[in-house]
Amino acid sequence: MKKILINLVHPNFDESIVNKKILEGVSEFKNITINNLYLKYPDFKIDIKKEQDLLLENDVIIFQFPMYWFSSPSLLKEWFDLVLEPGFAYGKDYKLKGKDFCIAVSCGAEKKDYVSDNENMMTNLLYPFYGTSLYIQMNYKEPFITYSAEKGLSEETLNKYNQEYLEYIKKLF
Amino acid sequence: MKKILINLVHPNFDESIVNKKILEGVSEFKNITINNLYLKYPDFKIDIKKEQDLLLENDVIIFQFPMYWFSSPSLLKEWFDLVLEPGFAYGKDYKLKGKDFCIAVSCGAEKKDYVSDNENMMTNLLYPFYGTSLYIQMNYKEPFITYSAEKGLSEETLNKYNQEYLEYIKKLF
Repeated sequence: MKKILINLVHPNFDESIVNKKILEGVSEFKNITINNLYLKYPDFKIDIKKEQDLLLENDVIIFQFPMYWFSSPSLLKEWFDLVLEPGFAYGKDYKLKGKDFCIAVSCGAEKKDYVSDNENMMTNLLYPFYGTSLYIQMNYKEPFITYSAEKGLSEETLNKYNQEYLEYIKKLF
Repeated sequence: MKKILINLVHPNFDESIVNKKILEGVSEFKNITINNLYLKYPDFKIDIKKEQDLLLENDVIIFQFPMYWFSSPSLLKEWFDLVLEPGFAYGKDYKLKGKDFCIAVSCGAEKKDYVSDNENMMTNLLYPFYGTSLYIQMNYKEPFITYSAEKGLSEETLNKYNQEYLEYIKKLF
């Protein structure tokens, strides 16, 4: 059975709605680790070796975050900049090669706001993540995307997102 | 005459090759300010008010950085996350409306590496910046892009990049 790491990146997780809701029940899966990066590194001083070890111990890496300015909150970028070192993630060695790379993103806006001229803007917005996964020879999987957090979501919709996320994760094992 | 702000975002500017070279002569323009963000905020503790004031004082904002993992170094993302507040950049007020939004990015790889199937990947990679500019009603200008920093550039090429950047800036005034 595969091992899954969720790198959770939310500057204010305790007050989050969607990101907290969709994680309900996740810890009941075996072989899953939730790694709350803002909790560990509020000062941005990332323990590179510790994060690399976590990556090596797992087969599937999910980056879960709310969409901030059409990308991830900044700590995830700092994590990429520091943790994906040459000789570890690329160059002499590609130690993450073949592991799955997944994005789970919660958007404030509605789905229709991310579609223009028959083009799915979300694919473009996530392109830097896709490029990163290719560069380090990981397998980029279909992302898990939720919408409309801004307008306030009903309990029913939140429960639906939660169920869909549990299903999404189940398929990754 | 317009006023230009260059938000320079390089974690290691002193050892940079391209980013340092293309700035040669820039300070001889009048009405231009170079704002070295990593020098001011090595600890990521951004002075939001000071940065907002700088934006208000200028007509053209250039974000100059090396490409890190197909995006900007993380401090620029933190800058976006903190400085572009609701009520300042969007929402009740759009205080940056109509100002020019420019990207000046130096890529390690060669130009051909950023083209696939007749598609310019660079446009996709910069899409989060484009989206941000639209959201805050700034004018997104054609970006200034240099390539091939990784393979080592000749003095001649570096001088050419420098001249092209000076020309690029001149047109923005």
